[in-house]
Amino acid sequence: MITVVKIGGHVLDDEKMFSRFCADFAALPGPKALVHGGSTMAGTALKALGVKSVKIEGRRVTDSATLQVVTMVYAGWYNKHIVATLQGLGCNAIGLSGCDASCVTAEIRAPRTLSDGKTVVDYGFVGDVKPESFDTAFIHAMLDRGLVPVFSAINHNGRGQLLNTNADTMAGCLAASLGARLLCCFEQKGVLGNPSEPDTVIPKVDEAMFAELKASAVVGAGMLPKLENAFAALRAGATEVYIKSASELLIEAGTKVVL
Amino acid sequence: MITVVKIGGHVLDDEKMFSRFCADFAALPGPKALVHGGSTMAGTALKALGVKSVKIEGRRVTDSATLQVVTMVYAGWYNKHIVATLQGLGCNAIGLSGCDASCVTAEIRAPRTLSDGKTVVDYGFVGDVKPESFDTAFIHAMLDRGLVPVFSAINHNGRGQLLNTNADTMAGCLAASLGARLLCCFEQKGVLGNPSEPDTVIPKVDEAMFAELKASAVVGAGMLPKLENAFAALRAGATEVYIKSASELLIEAGTKVVL
Repeated sequence: MITVVKIGGHVLDDEKMFSRFCADFAALPGPKALVHGGSTMAGTALKALGVKSVKIEGRRVTDSATLQVVTMVYAGWYNKHIVATLQGLGCNAIGLSGCDASCVTAEIRAPRTLSDGKTVVDYGFVGDVKPESFDTAFIHAMLDRGLVPVFSAINHNGRGQLLNTNADTMAGCLAASLGARLLCCFEQKGVLGNPSEPDTVIPKVDEAMFAELKASAVVGAGMLPKLENAFAALRAGATEVYIKSASELLIEAGTKVVL
Repeated sequence: MITVVKIGGHVLDDEKMFSRFCADFAALPGPKALVHGGSTMAGTALKALGVKSVKIEGRRVTDSATLQVVTMVYAGWYNKHIVATLQGLGCNAIGLSGCDASCVTAEIRAPRTLSDGKTVVDYGFVGDVKPESFDTAFIHAMLDRGLVPVFSAINHNGRGQLLNTNADTMAGCLAASLGARLLCCFEQKGVLGNPSEPDTVIPKVDEAMFAELKASAVVGAGMLPKLENAFAALRAGATEVYIKSASELLIEAGTKVVL
């Protein structure tokens, strides 16, 4: 079975966590792919380059200057730094953004009405993907050559435009398109029963429990979209989904999400 | 026959020249690959990010902060912008840096003595390539899938380290490794008999004429390494080399370099 691993910006920006993660990822058996975010450094680079960064309801509004910077940071530095590091560990990685071989085609997000029901926001060069956005024939061909695809969340629309995509959604759709298992790795040990107690990991969350967790406000703003994304991936064809620590990649740990 | 095209930063940074070039490159018949530079924007980004940029005898000294910025700019923005643009024109491009599938392995440049015969310079994370640096089996496999590789000049040493490479040398070595013809495209019409007269293109330069041009100081500081690189490519296996305008890609024009 193929394993799709998602890794976030906090892990990338912590040298120790990053080294540990890369060694574990290189050691992970079987065909695999990685999807990475990297928002921490993007914020720093935007600030240094004098590009005003706007986030509305947790999503970055991407004008052309912002797109240029996030493409530099995600598709450039993070993607190649990860790939070169994995190569040094004997893992034959290949960095891909959606435009490469047109392996991921996103569609620009239509302007959205916010939760106040009134304000309409145009997110600019932000792209949405679905499981059908992936060229699975190309991805399988790479896997069959023994290559390990490492995806940035910079995609394109096939008509010349790069688009900034949410990395969690992208990983979920990739896992669904490949019928893969998905390991969503971040800095915590899983979905926590008590967010201030790192060892209160809930081992299994199904949709009924998710409804309870939401109602009791145990699941916070950061975890909510991760869980929603996990259920969407399972419904669309991912075989297994875990939300777990980037430091526990190789061990049976974290939260298993089931339908 | 495979065609390797090299394009420089001046063409990338001029929107009109860039659009024209991409349309022509997409229309170029037969298997092909592109190698791009992009130094103009790298200088701007380095300045904006407060990284001190040092060039000695025309080559950039690359410390770790500089490496991070050039990787962002070359492997990130330029590479993906070119690939997405070509995809929009129906050309199935795939962006590659040397770490991707380990397709180009460079070796870090040993400290060099400058032309004064005394000063020794450590260029930092600068890598040199030779024709054997390229994984031609992988490149042929991509070409056989109908893909068009677009190479940034960011390579790696296979041991986890990214390295900044000279794009002209890289294009020459790639053409040599593939037994390809090489079109070195830039903003001038070719090697000029009189550098201040754009229409004095010398149609053919062999080694004897190159010696004459050098002796008479007709060939300037910018053209000298381009011609030396052209001869090196021919000696190492490139079948034909032209130095020509990026705006004349599809027409028989420019300077043909012959042994």
